[in-house]
Amino acid sequence: MDDIKTGWFSELSTLWPGQCLSLEVEEVLFHEKSKFQDIMVIQSKAFGRTLILDGVIQCTEKDEFSYQEMITFLPLNSHPQPRKVLIVGGGDGGVAREAVRHPAVEQVVMCEIDQMVVDVSKRLLPFMAAGFQSPKLELHFGDGLEFMKQHRDEFDVIITDSSDPVGPACTLFEENYFELMSSALRAGGIICSQGENMWFHQDIIRKVMDGCRKYYGSVSYGFTTIPTYPGGQIGFVLAAKDQGVDFSRPRRELTEPELDAMGLRYYSAEVHRAAFVLPRFVRQALAAPQ
Amino acid sequence: MDDIKTGWFSELSTLWPGQCLSLEVEEVLFHEKSKFQDIMVIQSKAFGRTLILDGVIQCTEKDEFSYQEMITFLPLNSHPQPRKVLIVGGGDGGVAREAVRHPAVEQVVMCEIDQMVVDVSKRLLPFMAAGFQSPKLELHFGDGLEFMKQHRDEFDVIITDSSDPVGPACTLFEENYFELMSSALRAGGIICSQGENMWFHQDIIRKVMDGCRKYYGSVSYGFTTIPTYPGGQIGFVLAAKDQGVDFSRPRRELTEPELDAMGLRYYSAEVHRAAFVLPRFVRQALAAPQ
Repeated sequence: MDDIKTGWFSELSTLWPGQCLSLEVEEVLFHEKSKFQDIMVIQSKAFGRTLILDGVIQCTEKDEFSYQEMITFLPLNSHPQPRKVLIVGGGDGGVAREAVRHPAVEQVVMCEIDQMVVDVSKRLLPFMAAGFQSPKLELHFGDGLEFMKQHRDEFDVIITDSSDPVGPACTLFEENYFELMSSALRAGGIICSQGENMWFHQDIIRKVMDGCRKYYGSVSYGFTTIPTYPGGQIGFVLAAKDQGVDFSRPRRELTEPELDAMGLRYYSAEVHRAAFVLPRFVRQALAAPQ
Repeated sequence: MDDIKTGWFSELSTLWPGQCLSLEVEEVLFHEKSKFQDIMVIQSKAFGRTLILDGVIQCTEKDEFSYQEMITFLPLNSHPQPRKVLIVGGGDGGVAREAVRHPAVEQVVMCEIDQMVVDVSKRLLPFMAAGFQSPKLELHFGDGLEFMKQHRDEFDVIITDSSDPVGPACTLFEENYFELMSSALRAGGIICSQGENMWFHQDIIRKVMDGCRKYYGSVSYGFTTIPTYPGGQIGFVLAAKDQGVDFSRPRRELTEPELDAMGLRYYSAEVHRAAFVLPRFVRQALAAPQ
């Protein structure tokens, strides 16, 4: 907080020791502790409105579309007919905003643990909270893991838009959670989880992927570029109940007029394919055990 | 320098106002002013040895291979037979190290303005300076623009590994420089220049590409991920004398055994193709004028 007093917010974390991104702050718009975490919204000079949870940047007005579009449309377009979608986390509303845009999606259920994040987003991040107004959306407040225990054979796609595996999102990186998601999926179902950074967190990614391989027939890793996340990229672990799913080949290719009509700024079928092309050192580090 | 005293180096620049990456410093190994710029080498906690010119990170031990491999092999493998290569800048030796590895390359000429960078690299960045030992390399010290005026019809590929368009590298972003490079190329020749960040510098990129279109038949933009450059990516402007060159299709596909033998950690033919797949908002911003 000293840094904010001098005009900059600095993002220090044990998850990326020895490096730190700082944003120049024009105004602190909100700062309170909820039951679950520290919630802050700032107006940053370079990236506009910025949501920060427990000291970690979650989304900024300038670059959030990369993350929201990619975590949503990579799994949705890997499924031939994603009618019913579950979002775990995503309290800012960004993933809901994208999911309800998809032509095949009829219903989006969302389970967020922290109501204060939703309330703050509606008030201060209207570009994110837009999704909350959709009649397709059904919003629950509660623990994602507990929610998953009560649902079986129900969703075509489950998107886990969590913060990092410290604090309230810890359980959403455990093997047990991936097993429960597998039961909550319908036949042919697909999951997509926030998957950290391929340069820094290969140990976390590898553990999640190895866990997934016990419950899913196909497991893959893709990534997107986003300047305000550590290292400038973030990845996604995708898994399908079925064997032989090639996530790098979208099952549904949105056309340019469809992408325009949906207002997409990052995602395209070409970007989808390229997201799964990993640098050699990452591909080798994440290869399935022989 | 205040930040270094408190244990961190902070990278502030007018090229990315309002944001700043900081690295925790274990030791300042070198810090002097050359005739051209401020040169510093630090041992950073997260990224190892780090070269900093005029306060801007040029390369770190942990992630430099992404930049060096991509700025070198994107153009070299876009050319059917790149026998003679010119590197402008690249005083740390990283691009030379990569270029001499290429099976078709017979001769690499390098023109670096600042001898102190080469000397410091040899002493403190041996993993970068490895290329200086190659018998294929011919090293000149001088101004890149002046060097270019004295060479015609000589090179198959020209790689401009410059710092940003402030300070000594300014002229290497001017239209005149791109015109001179076109004359220094042999028939079928190709250039590749450091091309800044697609999230922040679309104005610079667009200006360079528009300038190139006057002197080259094909112009394109690709990028790579690299955590210690602003925003976590850096791009490359590629141009070919010939029309109809599709940079996203490598003319030479290095096989996995070749890539292993060359010790490449980032680049592959697949990564080459994916490097030219741009997010929608970038593709639209950089599209050629109709």
